[in-house]
Amino acid sequence: MRIDHAFLFDLDGTLVDSVYQHVLAWKEALDSEAIDLSIWRIHRKIGMSGGLFTNQLLRETGIDITGEKSDRLREEHARAYRRLGAQIRPLPGASELLGWLSDANIPFAIATSGRMETAAVNIEALGVDPKSFPIITRDQVKYAKPDPDLFIAAADALGVPIENSIVIGDSVWDMLAATRCRALGVGLLSGGYGREELRDAGAMRVYEDPADLLYHIDEIGGRR
Amino acid sequence: MRIDHAFLFDLDGTLVDSVYQHVLAWKEALDSEAIDLSIWRIHRKIGMSGGLFTNQLLRETGIDITGEKSDRLREEHARAYRRLGAQIRPLPGASELLGWLSDANIPFAIATSGRMETAAVNIEALGVDPKSFPIITRDQVKYAKPDPDLFIAAADALGVPIENSIVIGDSVWDMLAATRCRALGVGLLSGGYGREELRDAGAMRVYEDPADLLYHIDEIGGRR
Repeated sequence: MRIDHAFLFDLDGTLVDSVYQHVLAWKEALDSEAIDLSIWRIHRKIGMSGGLFTNQLLRETGIDITGEKSDRLREEHARAYRRLGAQIRPLPGASELLGWLSDANIPFAIATSGRMETAAVNIEALGVDPKSFPIITRDQVKYAKPDPDLFIAAADALGVPIENSIVIGDSVWDMLAATRCRALGVGLLSGGYGREELRDAGAMRVYEDPADLLYHIDEIGGRR
Repeated sequence: MRIDHAFLFDLDGTLVDSVYQHVLAWKEALDSEAIDLSIWRIHRKIGMSGGLFTNQLLRETGIDITGEKSDRLREEHARAYRRLGAQIRPLPGASELLGWLSDANIPFAIATSGRMETAAVNIEALGVDPKSFPIITRDQVKYAKPDPDLFIAAADALGVPIENSIVIGDSVWDMLAATRCRALGVGLLSGGYGREELRDAGAMRVYEDPADLLYHIDEIGGRR
């Protein structure tokens, strides 16, 4: 009896170097609606579902984000992101890691809180064939991270049990979602969060970036 | 016998919300010289002396930053920062904190690894009179953080012993510099670093931002 692991990847900050552009794009969007929020607090919410993000905003700033304002925020963020994120690059080792998993016949998928509109650009930057593995986006589930729905849908698309899955992500939301669905969370520092934050949120192991993870992949269920 | 504390402040990420703009401005500058570095690694070097930054770059990327290339990088960073940082704001509580220290007759100064050119804009955003306290910039010392020279010069300008000073900063470089000159380091999360990183670098206490520090100022030597 052995466990055959599947790998479920977050996208922004985990495979592509796009977190800081998202952060400043949200800052621009919030400024345009005269919502004052420090940038580090935005950083800490990246990768979280938009609905929970606006709920937390309400709690922290007392500003109620109604449906219309929420739509404007999302549009303004998308506009600013397209400008700031013109040259999004894969993180070091990202393409090699996915290529290695393919060659080793280890199933993997991508599960992102972003929408397909943004995700498609990022996946193109990775230089992998998006038809060769499942990509689950915000459009396909009711609740995004830290709810585990995205990862559960990804495991389902692969036909593997979620309990045998390793969730790789850069944010505490990925780690919480992993814990909540009985997957194992593995953290990467490449989104700019601290090692202890990720550990604190349940990461069984933390690596620097995809290259560092590939170097240590035997530790978490990849056999060379 | 009692210790009368003086407060020595870092600027970017400590009093003004400018770290993420600096990070992406450096990313643009490095891209323009075809130097490939992940953004989170740049974030971890913000607030460090430019000379050490380029030395660490050499170690990590193998690329030697000669004098001319280093000058171009600095110019490109300044250009990108002026564009991205058009609307730099004080962090919550920053102006109130400095005002409170003034009213309490507790001496304070600012000591930044940045140059006066950039610092002047930030201090204007703070809405305080820059003539009412010392401001030490990179232009005035031989070595910037994590060397302690900036903080030593700031204590000297105030006429207080460095051993009685509290260094307030958002980066591990501030904390290391504080330790090296026998000051005490107090960390703020507002630069986007993790609590444990700051503690690990020697912070005696960590607060969220200037507002949170002001709320707890009795803990670190400010008496109301």
